[in-house]
Amino acid sequence: MNDETKKPSTEPYRGVRDFYPEDMVVQRYIQDTWSKVAESFGFHRYDASLLEPAELYRAKSSEEIVNDQTYTFRDRGDREVTLRPEMTPTVARMVAQRRRELAFPLRWYSIPNLFRYERAQRGRLREHWQLNCDIFGSHDVAADVEIIHLASSILTAFGAKDTDFEIRINDRATLFGEISKKIKDGGSTAEALKLLDSKAKISAEQYAQTESELFHTPLSLSPDVNSGVHTVLHELSKRGVTTASYDPSIVRGFTYYTGMVFEIFDTNPENRRSLLGGGRYDNLTGLFGGDPIPAVGFGMGDVTMRDFLETHSLLPATGIRGPVVYIVNDDTKTTHDAARIATTIRARGISAASNVSDKKLGDQLKLAERAGAGFALILSESDDTHFELKRLSDRTVTKVSLEECIATLLSELQ
Amino acid sequence: MNDETKKPSTEPYRGVRDFYPEDMVVQRYIQDTWSKVAESFGFHRYDASLLEPAELYRAKSSEEIVNDQTYTFRDRGDREVTLRPEMTPTVARMVAQRRRELAFPLRWYSIPNLFRYERAQRGRLREHWQLNCDIFGSHDVAADVEIIHLASSILTAFGAKDTDFEIRINDRATLFGEISKKIKDGGSTAEALKLLDSKAKISAEQYAQTESELFHTPLSLSPDVNSGVHTVLHELSKRGVTTASYDPSIVRGFTYYTGMVFEIFDTNPENRRSLLGGGRYDNLTGLFGGDPIPAVGFGMGDVTMRDFLETHSLLPATGIRGPVVYIVNDDTKTTHDAARIATTIRARGISAASNVSDKKLGDQLKLAERAGAGFALILSESDDTHFELKRLSDRTVTKVSLEECIATLLSELQ
Repeated sequence: MNDETKKPSTEPYRGVRDFYPEDMVVQRYIQDTWSKVAESFGFHRYDASLLEPAELYRAKSSEEIVNDQTYTFRDRGDREVTLRPEMTPTVARMVAQRRRELAFPLRWYSIPNLFRYERAQRGRLREHWQLNCDIFGSHDVAADVEIIHLASSILTAFGAKDTDFEIRINDRATLFGEISKKIKDGGSTAEALKLLDSKAKISAEQYAQTESELFHTPLSLSPDVNSGVHTVLHELSKRGVTTASYDPSIVRGFTYYTGMVFEIFDTNPENRRSLLGGGRYDNLTGLFGGDPIPAVGFGMGDVTMRDFLETHSLLPATGIRGPVVYIVNDDTKTTHDAARIATTIRARGISAASNVSDKKLGDQLKLAERAGAGFALILSESDDTHFELKRLSDRTVTKVSLEECIATLLSELQ
Repeated sequence: MNDETKKPSTEPYRGVRDFYPEDMVVQRYIQDTWSKVAESFGFHRYDASLLEPAELYRAKSSEEIVNDQTYTFRDRGDREVTLRPEMTPTVARMVAQRRRELAFPLRWYSIPNLFRYERAQRGRLREHWQLNCDIFGSHDVAADVEIIHLASSILTAFGAKDTDFEIRINDRATLFGEISKKIKDGGSTAEALKLLDSKAKISAEQYAQTESELFHTPLSLSPDVNSGVHTVLHELSKRGVTTASYDPSIVRGFTYYTGMVFEIFDTNPENRRSLLGGGRYDNLTGLFGGDPIPAVGFGMGDVTMRDFLETHSLLPATGIRGPVVYIVNDDTKTTHDAARIATTIRARGISAASNVSDKKLGDQLKLAERAGAGFALILSESDDTHFELKRLSDRTVTKVSLEECIATLLSELQ
């Protein structure tokens, strides 16, 4: 243990993040806003373990995906376990398990951490947090509208303007019809979806080449809005969401989507990235047996969210918030004196920390500032009944009794 | 995929829990209370990934512990990764990494999920959540008192009475002195600690037998309180914590404790279990190089906490809380009508869900109750400007305009 060569690193595992208190402030701000808006739409929070039987993903994915893109290992009972790469299979499993007891339609949300297992690359994270919102038990297009409206409301709750993002909507049902009409014998729908999803990333020649290999005649991704998407757009605008449009090129990666699919993009010309996406998946619960329960939902990641907020200067400039008051003492008083005063103040509902060090008074005051305290209460020999109360924002000092101090702090809290 | 034999199970992975919304209410109540009390003591929240390099635990544990009691596997970069079995090595790593930038003493807390890898047994969980509170950077006994006071304040914040739990304190420094004086050549301190920790669980004969193998003369665990523990007890009582006592049999399992150790026990005669424990570990950060930073802290698990609250009838009887109002409609109105009214109400700061199903009105009202809504607003053909507002707790109905409805709901929120 004293062998220098065995000293463990202070770095976190490659591709994951440490959250120091100042990072945690941002993380909590993002997650609390997600939570607040989801609950304003009547969504209930659920959660689950990140450990799932690997078979949960095998059922809907190829062996290759489970092995190459997830953390999957065997436990000592020889069961294959996966660190969840997405939340949808988990929530479908939970809903399927209690399908007889639950009152549908459900409005459920969760903020799980998700894992992807890839070779570490700079900037590619192996763990991130994602808001997941889903409505289970409704075929109604109103559920599609509700989900998109919720996603859009979350962005505006962070202070985003309508012009900061655009919502693009498609319907896979139409797409599947078009594909099945034109695909060559033996061609796979998955291949066709993959081609469409890559359209913006490959050259027109490459696209045309692959298209002619897969299809009899070129796909005509209709510029005409289909009637389901039309209703979604119309109802969104009635709710004040006017930045949505039909986009036949929106396909989404996951194979389980069955109908409406959507993505929201940043309109920043330097960063037109997809902020979030989702859609309708009416068959997923059917995997577990019984009639499938219709579902529509979306997922939104913390890293993308934070980038968006930073790009648009929407992150509030709050540092760490500490206790309302930090009790400090000069060397004529003890840490126990400070602690007892803190206890008295805390009993009145005011958060309070006290010095537990042998630092000089000046250093204690610096610590109180660094800790984000609002005030420092200074105990010194000069007076046992009155103390200096220092407001740390402007460093003004007033002489107060303990009761006056408490009154000042309480009025500050209102 | 349609092969019946390949149907995935709806059960979670063995030994972990799904949190349905009603479970999540309890989980959030526990975690929010933890968080609130820790912050009232000026503690800042941090977090980290549950994935850690396995070497982090090797440094302080035997190879056997890392392999047998943790989830450890190799990633494709051939690095050994562990799902954290406890938080202390992680927080020590984080503090060590920024030791030059951080303002000490730190008051830090976290609520991580932890994993232990053992053969699944009924009732033994492989994942649980644990509150961790630590003070870094103080040798002062006031930090020891603060940590125990915080732990005790958390129990009373849940409504526990002083008589519901007892705090037992020891000092390992005294113990190590006693052990080193009396241990036979070649005897290990770890073995001695293990024996002492098992004292209550084994027979007097077994204890005496092993003791005589390990020591020249029987250990005399002094009934006299040592001076450090004496100060802790004295200062706790000055803060109103009178249920603490010296207990020379408190040893704690982790090897890293260097001084004060404590546990809090349930006083329920049928369930005298340890609720939480902690202590001083002044050398752990030294593992990473540089001078060690003194530290004292404790951990408290969610499962034990919930058991304690249930045993003492301290869990509030709140079911799931839904939106303030659920907008329902008869078959003369559409889901879109309901959604638009919900949007108007939500814009006034009131949480609102709306019907997205083709259920009959009566079933929609049942759903609103099941979802934990406070009110249902009923849209029907009979009147386009006035609606029935049903208070779901007593099923009283009033006829209101939309503005009157909003006024009623807003007054309800105050």
